[in-house]
Amino acid sequence: MEGKKRVAIIASKGTLDMAYPPLIIATTAAAMGWEVGIFFTFYGLDMLNKKKVRKLKVAPLGNPAMPVPVPNIVGAIPGMTALATWMMKRMMRKQQVPPIMEMLDLARQSGVKLFACTTTMGVMGVADSDLIEGSECAGAATFLDYAVKAQVTLFI
Amino acid sequence: MEGKKRVAIIASKGTLDMAYPPLIIATTAAAMGWEVGIFFTFYGLDMLNKKKVRKLKVAPLGNPAMPVPVPNIVGAIPGMTALATWMMKRMMRKQQVPPIMEMLDLARQSGVKLFACTTTMGVMGVADSDLIEGSECAGAATFLDYAVKAQVTLFI
Amino acid sequence: MEGKKRVAIIASKGTLDMAYPPLIIATTAAAMGWEVGIFFTFYGLDMLNKKKVRKLKVAPLGNPAMPVPVPNIVGAIPGMTALATWMMKRMMRKQQVPPIMEMLDLARQSGVKLFACTTTMGVMGVADSDLIEGSECAGAATFLDYAVKAQVTLFI
Repeated sequence: MEGKKRVAIIASKGTLDMAYPPLIIATTAAAMGWEVGIFFTFYGLDMLNKKKVRKLKVAPLGNPAMPVPVPNIVGAIPGMTALATWMMKRMMRKQQVPPIMEMLDLARQSGVKLFACTTTMGVMGVADSDLIEGSECAGAATFLDYAVKAQVTLFI
Repeated sequence: MEGKKRVAIIASKGTLDMAYPPLIIATTAAAMGWEVGIFFTFYGLDMLNKKKVRKLKVAPLGNPAMPVPVPNIVGAIPGMTALATWMMKRMMRKQQVPPIMEMLDLARQSGVKLFACTTTMGVMGVADSDLIEGSECAGAATFLDYAVKAQVTLFI
Repeated sequence: MEGKKRVAIIASKGTLDMAYPPLIIATTAAAMGWEVGIFFTFYGLDMLNKKKVRKLKVAPLGNPAMPVPVPNIVGAIPGMTALATWMMKRMMRKQQVPPIMEMLDLARQSGVKLFACTTTMGVMGVADSDLIEGSECAGAATFLDYAVKAQVTLFI
């Protein structure tokens, strides 16, 4: 292997729980000196959306693997999504895992490329000005060109 | 890198929203001259199932990242899955993203290999004659042999 | 390509349905003589957790692609998760797909590396003694070092 190692990630989920894995992998790889690019698409684009990134939630529903599982009938009660979200944030904080916004800042400062999927921007009505600083708009073709030189490719 | 670039995708989801990413990536890569193979497994096999591919749905439940999020208690009301499905199709159409069936046709015409997972066919009781034209039955071993020569590998 | 082929998998889901794909791919690859490593993180760590691996469940909710889909309002009724779990186990058994615990044993005996994510262990309060025999504790950096030499990398 010559040159720098590279990881290319597609982040497609917009729930709080699934926002962590791309950012943990990205910041770890960047700290190891790798090149890192994340392509935020579908619900994942919420992570680059200034209006949404601080409001990511996790629903206690349809996932019997939640650390504190609740019956689905209870998970459907209004307020339970807020409770599950609060619990997850607390569990992460206790383990010194930084909040999503801080991890994004760290990623950007470490040179991680943040690609915003242009098709998703169109479908969801997201404007350039909605994106956090440092985001680059890109299509699937740009991502594939980036990913072909990566040793590790992941769809999250 | 010698020869053609290649992307190998596992499509494991059978919801309407997660049916788009494998097909968007596949058709984009094919248009760039790459070799593309998709291995449809688990719920993803519905995409190759003539009886099911036109009926893929998205549920407005357990995903607080839906573009128009609804409380889970509302998402559980009968009819809400049909409404969310209709909305997603409309959003995609407005952005000129073709329906799943058209994307599958385009993929096939572009030479994308469509592998139907034989284990899933057994588990779900899907016969050869249920599959759309151009599907090839294959096991996980065949997919791994295909994927080992790919620069980009994704589990969706 | 020189040396052994390698697949590196991240298993992040803790539901019964999504526990099968990493283990089916891993045991297939191992049978083909590949090196295989699975990094169990987030909900996926439940698969290495002695107290939880035999109790993985699947919820009939928010996934309209379930083989026998039920309306979400029905899926929320207490008991439906147990019913869906029982049905999935029966479907798998009929096709001679072994239970998760047997597949883990087979994977271990075939030399598959089972990495338990240390960050997740902290967040979820899982101790070394909770892990099934043969698990190795590892961080994201260890996984990336392993994955960089893999031809196939998958986030499940």
